[in-house]
Amino acid sequence: MNHNDNAPLLLTPGPLTTAVTTREAMLRDWGSRDQVFLELNARVRQRVVEIAGGVGTHVCVPVQGSGTFAVEAAIGTLMPRRGKLLVLVNGAYGRRMAQICNVAGIDCVTHEWPELEPVDAATTAELLDADPRISHVAVVHCETTTGLLNPVEEVAAAVAQRGRGLLIDAMSAFGAIDLSARNVRYDALMASSNKCIEGTPGVGFAILRTKVLKQCEGNARSLSLDLYDQWRGFEKNNQWRFTPPTHVLAAFDRALADHAAEGGVAGRGARYRQNCKILVDGMRQMGFKTALPDELQAPIIVTFLLPRDKEFEFHRFYEQLARRGFLIYPGKLTKGDTFRIGCIGQVYPDDMRRALTAVRQALDELGVKDCAP
Amino acid sequence: MNHNDNAPLLLTPGPLTTAVTTREAMLRDWGSRDQVFLELNARVRQRVVEIAGGVGTHVCVPVQGSGTFAVEAAIGTLMPRRGKLLVLVNGAYGRRMAQICNVAGIDCVTHEWPELEPVDAATTAELLDADPRISHVAVVHCETTTGLLNPVEEVAAAVAQRGRGLLIDAMSAFGAIDLSARNVRYDALMASSNKCIEGTPGVGFAILRTKVLKQCEGNARSLSLDLYDQWRGFEKNNQWRFTPPTHVLAAFDRALADHAAEGGVAGRGARYRQNCKILVDGMRQMGFKTALPDELQAPIIVTFLLPRDKEFEFHRFYEQLARRGFLIYPGKLTKGDTFRIGCIGQVYPDDMRRALTAVRQALDELGVKDCAP
Repeated sequence: MNHNDNAPLLLTPGPLTTAVTTREAMLRDWGSRDQVFLELNARVRQRVVEIAGGVGTHVCVPVQGSGTFAVEAAIGTLMPRRGKLLVLVNGAYGRRMAQICNVAGIDCVTHEWPELEPVDAATTAELLDADPRISHVAVVHCETTTGLLNPVEEVAAAVAQRGRGLLIDAMSAFGAIDLSARNVRYDALMASSNKCIEGTPGVGFAILRTKVLKQCEGNARSLSLDLYDQWRGFEKNNQWRFTPPTHVLAAFDRALADHAAEGGVAGRGARYRQNCKILVDGMRQMGFKTALPDELQAPIIVTFLLPRDKEFEFHRFYEQLARRGFLIYPGKLTKGDTFRIGCIGQVYPDDMRRALTAVRQALDELGVKDCAP
Repeated sequence: MNHNDNAPLLLTPGPLTTAVTTREAMLRDWGSRDQVFLELNARVRQRVVEIAGGVGTHVCVPVQGSGTFAVEAAIGTLMPRRGKLLVLVNGAYGRRMAQICNVAGIDCVTHEWPELEPVDAATTAELLDADPRISHVAVVHCETTTGLLNPVEEVAAAVAQRGRGLLIDAMSAFGAIDLSARNVRYDALMASSNKCIEGTPGVGFAILRTKVLKQCEGNARSLSLDLYDQWRGFEKNNQWRFTPPTHVLAAFDRALADHAAEGGVAGRGARYRQNCKILVDGMRQMGFKTALPDELQAPIIVTFLLPRDKEFEFHRFYEQLARRGFLIYPGKLTKGDTFRIGCIGQVYPDDMRRALTAVRQALDELGVKDCAP
């Protein structure tokens, strides 16, 4: 049996390192229509709504697949046939929402900010005032492309004032960065099992305003991704319409219990902020530069500029770190060479310190003298 | 740690009982873009094509989600914008394919047979001759609604002769009932990780004729369910476009190795046929009647008619069996009251004999004297 023996620590935006107990929750088989599993389902859905601060106003509708499946499902279910979506773009995940619309034939317009700048509420307000046909706005909370935290609260206020609907891709932030539905008005917030909740991958979910969802019958462009139908199924008998990933849900259930035990969003976020600070401080001490200024940086994943030193080759650096038990992530910026190191998952301050030692050793092995970009 | 301790045996169409070793393969975390995981991916895709007899002609494109996601993805990717799909329906899974088309706006016509009769090639041929606009035909191999095995070979011949494309939903048969792409011409065959391959649920896949797939760029109505794009991603670097359910894939990889060790399709099918025979013989000895005659019965799941005896209540019968460690499945026939017992998964002849003992005890507990429908 393998309890992550020899498995590297995943310093990535996910799939990420999970707790042994979370993985062990997958050692049992479940009948997908059996009472024990249905109770597990109900518990997961309830707990997610609680974390979101949406008790009484929102419901959680999980969907099989990755986070992108949940994003596409939420867009496809909420957008009326004559709706028009404004997507605020400052990275790959904003662009992906526009691509979802294009493929599905949903009327969509984008506004792009530079990848190293946050989207802003004032521009959003102007765009909404200029085009009354825009019925909904979509925004990414933490843009994993860079690790930038968008000012979703301000955007939400501008959107709500103008009576439009808001969809938030909170994939890599949900569970670690506070965004309570009690303070921030949204119709849909999408995330997945295997980001800050630290479950295993295979389930996405949307937290949907119940009043809005009730009006979404027949909107969906896909049977599999119809969150209205999926919701009706759950409301009827707590059952999934189509085979759920039972083991992944059992792991998710366990991970949610651990999330609560760590102090919920506040506790989880505090650990990630500590991880992030240790990482950024240590990397800067070695001469690395972050792509973002600290005030825009979410404590989720950090983008570093590639050193100019000719001895630095990313794939060799990656291999050296992998050999030492740490997997990092390539960059995703459109312009400029970068790489990324994640701060989330079952990763603790001591792990970050060990990772910094490994970075130092990798640089020495490669003969990199200067980490300046 | 829980190695299925106290977990009941799943006599259902899936999720089903898996091997301990398959579940243990989920105890490790994987970086989704790391070389070790990419090799696992490539091995899974290759092995599925080998089982299908499609080496050199077909490719395997897995997709996150349940089997229905794979069916919808295959339909959405293969159907050209001006295509028209004829769905042969004799149960819920045929009807579901038509529903997929209706929601996605794909031109679709159905022909319905009674649920206890197989679809037939002659009628299919007539329908194709009468409507040259039909570009593709969809059929279910084993219709899990009843457990009926449709004559897919004959249908495939009729479709091929007329130069139309064929999509086969082989969800509950793939890996246990022979249907080699070398003998049966199809463009797409869809199945999932957690039926006869005995993996855990969370991944579906389609086996697609490469020549056809190459022409499918831009067909898809969904970004998440675009198998052309998904395939291009795999061909490029063995990577998934969006986060894969890494643990489920590791379990799938392990389950495929066990499938080969059992003798592949022939070995797996032999065990299931034995399970099925023991079940049907034993239930008939107690007076139960199967919905289907033996010649139409696939060794996957068996539909039994509900006894007329007033003491027989399905939910009490289910509870009695559950208490004894066996989960069975409700019926799905449109007409007539039925229940179902599955023969697939990590279930062996001795398990079926124990299940029969449990059925006998459950009947005694309920005071059911007569099992005749």
